[in-house]
Amino acid sequence: MKVGIIGATGYGGLELIRFLHNHPEVQQIELFTSSDEGAIFSSKFGHLLTIQDTPLQKIDIETLAHLDVVFTSTPSGVTSTLLPPLVGVGPKIIDLSGDYRLKDLEVFEKWYNKQPAPKQLVKQSVYGLTEWNERNIQLAHLVANPGCYPTAVLLSILPLIKEGLIDPNYLVIDAKSGVSGAGNKLSQTTHYSEMNENFSIYKVNEHQHIPEIEQAIELFADVKTTITFNTHLVPMTRGILATTYAPVINGVSNEQLTECLMETYKDHPFVRVVSSGTSIGTSRVKGSNYCDILVKLDERTNRATIVSVIDNLVKGAAGQAIQNMNVQFHMPQTFGLDVIPLFI
Amino acid sequence: MKVGIIGATGYGGLELIRFLHNHPEVQQIELFTSSDEGAIFSSKFGHLLTIQDTPLQKIDIETLAHLDVVFTSTPSGVTSTLLPPLVGVGPKIIDLSGDYRLKDLEVFEKWYNKQPAPKQLVKQSVYGLTEWNERNIQLAHLVANPGCYPTAVLLSILPLIKEGLIDPNYLVIDAKSGVSGAGNKLSQTTHYSEMNENFSIYKVNEHQHIPEIEQAIELFADVKTTITFNTHLVPMTRGILATTYAPVINGVSNEQLTECLMETYKDHPFVRVVSSGTSIGTSRVKGSNYCDILVKLDERTNRATIVSVIDNLVKGAAGQAIQNMNVQFHMPQTFGLDVIPLFI
Amino acid sequence: MKVGIIGATGYGGLELIRFLHNHPEVQQIELFTSSDEGAIFSSKFGHLLTIQDTPLQKIDIETLAHLDVVFTSTPSGVTSTLLPPLVGVGPKIIDLSGDYRLKDLEVFEKWYNKQPAPKQLVKQSVYGLTEWNERNIQLAHLVANPGCYPTAVLLSILPLIKEGLIDPNYLVIDAKSGVSGAGNKLSQTTHYSEMNENFSIYKVNEHQHIPEIEQAIELFADVKTTITFNTHLVPMTRGILATTYAPVINGVSNEQLTECLMETYKDHPFVRVVSSGTSIGTSRVKGSNYCDILVKLDERTNRATIVSVIDNLVKGAAGQAIQNMNVQFHMPQTFGLDVIPLFI
Amino acid sequence: MKVGIIGATGYGGLELIRFLHNHPEVQQIELFTSSDEGAIFSSKFGHLLTIQDTPLQKIDIETLAHLDVVFTSTPSGVTSTLLPPLVGVGPKIIDLSGDYRLKDLEVFEKWYNKQPAPKQLVKQSVYGLTEWNERNIQLAHLVANPGCYPTAVLLSILPLIKEGLIDPNYLVIDAKSGVSGAGNKLSQTTHYSEMNENFSIYKVNEHQHIPEIEQAIELFADVKTTITFNTHLVPMTRGILATTYAPVINGVSNEQLTECLMETYKDHPFVRVVSSGTSIGTSRVKGSNYCDILVKLDERTNRATIVSVIDNLVKGAAGQAIQNMNVQFHMPQTFGLDVIPLFI
Repeated sequence: MKVGIIGATGYGGLELIRFLHNHPEVQQIELFTSSDEGAIFSSKFGHLLTIQDTPLQKIDIETLAHLDVVFTSTPSGVTSTLLPPLVGVGPKIIDLSGDYRLKDLEVFEKWYNKQPAPKQLVKQSVYGLTEWNERNIQLAHLVANPGCYPTAVLLSILPLIKEGLIDPNYLVIDAKSGVSGAGNKLSQTTHYSEMNENFSIYKVNEHQHIPEIEQAIELFADVKTTITFNTHLVPMTRGILATTYAPVINGVSNEQLTECLMETYKDHPFVRVVSSGTSIGTSRVKGSNYCDILVKLDERTNRATIVSVIDNLVKGAAGQAIQNMNVQFHMPQTFGLDVIPLFI
Repeated sequence: MKVGIIGATGYGGLELIRFLHNHPEVQQIELFTSSDEGAIFSSKFGHLLTIQDTPLQKIDIETLAHLDVVFTSTPSGVTSTLLPPLVGVGPKIIDLSGDYRLKDLEVFEKWYNKQPAPKQLVKQSVYGLTEWNERNIQLAHLVANPGCYPTAVLLSILPLIKEGLIDPNYLVIDAKSGVSGAGNKLSQTTHYSEMNENFSIYKVNEHQHIPEIEQAIELFADVKTTITFNTHLVPMTRGILATTYAPVINGVSNEQLTECLMETYKDHPFVRVVSSGTSIGTSRVKGSNYCDILVKLDERTNRATIVSVIDNLVKGAAGQAIQNMNVQFHMPQTFGLDVIPLFI
Repeated sequence: MKVGIIGATGYGGLELIRFLHNHPEVQQIELFTSSDEGAIFSSKFGHLLTIQDTPLQKIDIETLAHLDVVFTSTPSGVTSTLLPPLVGVGPKIIDLSGDYRLKDLEVFEKWYNKQPAPKQLVKQSVYGLTEWNERNIQLAHLVANPGCYPTAVLLSILPLIKEGLIDPNYLVIDAKSGVSGAGNKLSQTTHYSEMNENFSIYKVNEHQHIPEIEQAIELFADVKTTITFNTHLVPMTRGILATTYAPVINGVSNEQLTECLMETYKDHPFVRVVSSGTSIGTSRVKGSNYCDILVKLDERTNRATIVSVIDNLVKGAAGQAIQNMNVQFHMPQTFGLDVIPLFI
Repeated sequence: MKVGIIGATGYGGLELIRFLHNHPEVQQIELFTSSDEGAIFSSKFGHLLTIQDTPLQKIDIETLAHLDVVFTSTPSGVTSTLLPPLVGVGPKIIDLSGDYRLKDLEVFEKWYNKQPAPKQLVKQSVYGLTEWNERNIQLAHLVANPGCYPTAVLLSILPLIKEGLIDPNYLVIDAKSGVSGAGNKLSQTTHYSEMNENFSIYKVNEHQHIPEIEQAIELFADVKTTITFNTHLVPMTRGILATTYAPVINGVSNEQLTECLMETYKDHPFVRVVSSGTSIGTSRVKGSNYCDILVKLDERTNRATIVSVIDNLVKGAAGQAIQNMNVQFHMPQTFGLDVIPLFI
C-alpha cells in the first residue's frame, strides 16, 4: 500500500509515521505540506534521521490520487476546502481534523467559529469510532476520525447508556489531557515555564468536543441529551483521563456495570476493562492504541464513576486512524498497532 | 512567641518552618520528632543549612507546655493519643492531621480505619476553616486544621449553597492534587518514574475527605447532603484544582454567582474571586496562601462549574494553620503569610 | 524608597516584584514597559490579583528620574540605547541584561551579534557579583548584574583560583539550567511538549557567557585564561547546577579546597559551603537567593569537581539585583531576600 | 525461539518484554522471579493486561535449561551466584547487571562493594558493546551487557581515541541520566516530590561505571587511561546525555572528527552521527535503540565537545541486550528493535 500524510509536521502526523513504519502492508509513506516544500523531513525532525530522509512534497491532487489512502492531520478549517477535490478520485481518506465530524453545519459554525465543509461531503463522511461503527467505516470513502476527548469518553459510556444502566440526563464529564493535544503551535499557555507545574481548566463549558459527544450518543445509543463537559490541561505530554459521573438506574449493581463493558468489548483488542482496584492512570496506555476503562458504583449516592484512559495521540488520533484504515482495507485491526504501552 | 512543631520532618512541617521564619511575632521555633532525636535539622534538610541548624527534640509534654503554640503535622492516627495530655496545659494547639476533624467518631473509624481520638476532645476542637469560623477559632484551645481538598472545595461552594444559588443535592466534585499531598512516605505510586507523566484517579469514591466536606456543608450552610467526590493525582508537586458541578436554582445568572463569591470574601485577604476569563490554573497560587475561585454558569444545562485553586501545602495545610494561629492571637491574618505566589 | 522596573512582564521582572514586595524599605514599585502601556498588571498576570493592580507605564525619562532605583530587565540589546539618557539624572540603575557586562566592545559584538552600548557608560558600569565587588557596587551609578551561569560558576571557582589551589588553564565547566532562563519568549525549543522529558545541550561551545566568565576571572583572580564552557537545558523551570572540573595543584587536599571556600564566604549570608556528602541538587536553593557549593577532590586523577547550585531567577537575576541595591543603599544585604528555599 | 527473563518486574525486564513482543523470531516469553511466584504478571503491571497474563515462575535451572536464551535483569550482586549453574547447560545468557563486566575482581569489589562472580566465568564473559564486539558476541555463552552510561560514552569517544584524533589523557566526562536508571527500588531521592524540579549530581567522583569505561577504552582502543567521570540525575524518566571534553590532537579539524564517527558507524543501523547544528537532546532517541552523536571542535581551546544521547532503558539496557541476542543467533541486528523514537 501507498500512504500519504497531509500535515505530517504536526504531532498527529509524526505519530502516523511512527506506526505506519511498522505496518506490514504499507510499503511507501509520502509526506505533504502546505509550506516548506522540498525540505528533507529528518532535517526538521532529528529523531527520524536515517528513517525518513525524504523531502516534503507539495499538496497536489494528481499526486495524491495515485495513493491508496490519504491521512489529513491539519488544524481545523483546512480540510473543509482541501478535501472536496480529492474525495472519490482514488484514495480512501481519513481526516483527523474536526471538519467532517459534526453533521449539523450550524452547530459546526457555532462551536468552531469557522466555515463548514460542503454539506454533501459532511453527509457522506463516516464517524470513525472504530469499535462502534465498523460496518460503515468499511464502506466509507471519507472517515471523520473522532476527537481525542470524545474517543475516551464515548468508549466508556456508550455501552452503559445503550444498555440502560445509567441515566443519560445528568452526565457530568470531567476530562483531563496532556499538553500534546494542543499540537505544536506555540502559545503562552503551552510555553514550558508556564505550563510546567501548572494544572488548569480551560474553555470552561465551551469546548468544541461537546456537540461531537452529544451527536455520537444519539447516533450510537439513540439518546438525545445535553451533557456537562469540561477539559483540563495536565503538565505532561501524552494521555487523557476522562471521569464521567452518572446516576445509576435503580437496582443496577457494580458487577452489572463492569460486566456490560466487558461483554461489549470482548472481541475488541484495543479496549480493556479493568475489573478490580480503585485506581487507574494514563501511563498504562502510553504510546499505545489501548483504551482502558474502570467503572465504580458509589452506593452512597447511587451514582457511577466511569473512568477511561487513552493516549491522546494514538487511540485519540493517529492510532485510531490507522485502525480505521485497517478496517477499510479488511486487514486485522491490530496491523501496525500491536505495540505494548511504555508504562514509564 | 515561642512555637513548637511536632512532625517537622514532613512536608507540612517544612512549610510551617518556611513561613514562621518570616513571621514578625515568632521569635523561636522548636522542632520535635518521635524518631531521630538529637539530629541537626539542617543535616537532614540541606535547604535549611545556616537557617535551622538546631537539633530535633524528643516529644516531651513539659517542654511543650512552655510554648505559646504547638503545631502537630503528623500522619493520621498519631495525635489522637499524643494530644490529650497536652490540651489545656498551656499552648494553643493546631492539629494538621485528620484526627480531630470529624465530630462523629463512628464516621471517623469507618473512613480512616483507625481508632478515634477521645470524644471529649473531638467535641471541643474547632474546625479551622479560617474564613468561615473566625469567631470560634479565636477561642479555641485545639484547632482541627482542615484537609487540603476540603479547603479548596468548601471555600468555593459554601457561599453559593448558603445563599441558595445552587442545588446542594447533586454536587459532583472532581478534585486534582499535586503529589506533595501524599507526603514524604515512600510508595510505588509516588516513585518518580511511575508518577511522572502519569495522571491517575485513586481511591475511587472512597476518599476520607468526603465526610469532612459533608460535615462542613452542614455546619456552615446548614444543609445535609451526600456528595460525589473524587480525587486525582497530577504529575506535579504542588497545587490542588477542584472542579465542582452543581445545578443552579432557576433564574440565577452567572453574574449573581460571581457576585455572591465576591461579596462573601470582600474582606478576606486570601480568597480572590476571578471575575473574567475561561481558564484558571494552580500556578497562580503556587507557594502562597491564596485560594482563587472562578465560577461559570453553563446556560445549555443550567449547571454551574465552580473551580478553585490552592497550594495544598499552604492554604491546604501550613499556611491556613498559621492563619489560624494569627486569629487565635488576635494578630492580622496576613502576618507571616504575605508572600506573592511564585507563578513559575 | 521608590523603585521602578523596566521590563516587568519578563520572568526577571516578576521575580523583582515578588521580592521587593517584602522589602522593608521599599514603599512603591512602578512598572514600565515598551508595549501594553496602560494595561492593569494583574490582568496580565493573574497571580498578582489584588497585589499589583496598577497599570503599566510608558517608559519616560522624567518619570524615571524621580525614582531612587531603576531595574532594567529587558532582552539583550535594549538597554544599550535605553539607559544613556537615564544614567546620572537621579536613580541608581541596575541592569539585568547583558549589555553592560563586557568591557571590550568588540568582544560584546562578536558574542552577542548586537551593537554595543556607549563605551564611556560601559566603562563606568560596575560588575555586580555582590560577594566579590561590594566596595565598587556601593559607589556605582550603573550596576551590570551578572549573568545566571557566570554567577553560579564564578562564586564556586574564584576562591580556588585566587588562592592558587586549582590550575586555571584547564577549566572545563559543564552547566545545566532550568528552562526559565530562556525567558518568556515563545520558541519551538521551549514549547512544552518538546521541552518536557528532553534534556539537551545547546549553543555548543558558543554561549555568550563564556567571555563574561573569563573577564571576571581576570578581574577578581588576576588570571587570564580560556575556558571550556557548555550549557544544557533541563526539563524543569528553575535552577542552575554548574559542574566545573579543574586540575588541583600538587599536594592540595580535599579539606583545603573546602576550607578555602568556607573561609572566603564566612561572612556572606547567601553563599553556603556544603562540607560533607557526595550529592547536591538545585531544589535546596529553589526560590531563594542562596548559592550552595560542594567541592570534591578526585584522588585518582588529582582533579577537583566543583559544583554549585543557584536559582537562576533569584541569585542568578532578580535576587542578586536586589542584593546589589541593598549594598548601594547601605542596607543589610538580606533585606527583602531572607526567605527559606522551597525545597519541594 | 523461547526466551526467559529473570528479574522481569524491574524496568529493564519490562522493556525486554516490550521489544521481544514484536520480535519476529520469538514465540514464547517466560518470566521468572525470586519472589511473588505464581502472581499473574498483568495483575502487577496493568499496562500488560491481555498481553502478558501469564504467571511469574520460580527460578529453576531445569526449566531455564530448555530455553534458547535467558536475560537476567537483576540488581548487582545477584547473578554472581545465580548464573554459575546455568552457564553451559543450554541457553545463551545475556546479563544486564554489572556482575560480569569487570575482568579484574578486585576492581569489582572496590567499586561495587560486593562479592564478585567466579573468576572463570567472568573471564569467559564477553562485553556486549554490540558495535565494537560483534565477533566475540556471536560466540559467547555469557554476554555482559554494558552499563547505560558506558554505552553512551564509549560509542561516542572510542572512534576518536582509536583513530588518535583526541588526547585520551585528559578526558572529562559529564553524564546526565533520567531517573529510570535508578530502577524501581524506592528511595527518598527518587520520591516524586523530591526528585521533581530538582537537578542533582550524585556519587561525585565515585560512580561504579568509571572502571567499566576505562576497561573498555583499553580493550577496544588499546589505551590505558584514568578518566574524570560524573553523573547527574535529570527530573525526567528516560534518557542519557553524556558530554565528553577532550583535547584535540594538533591540526585535527571539526570535519575530521565528524568524518571519523560517520565512517566508523556507516554500517551500523543504531548509531547515527549528527553532522550539523549546535544542539542535541534525548527526545530524539526516546523509546528506541538509537545512539545519536554530535561532535564540535572548540577552536578557542582546541578541545572537542563530544555529545551522545541514548534511551538508558533501551540502547543502555534492554535494546542492546536484544541486539546482542540477534548477533548471537545470526539474525539481523534490527529484529524486534526497528521502532521509531517517540520524540514527544
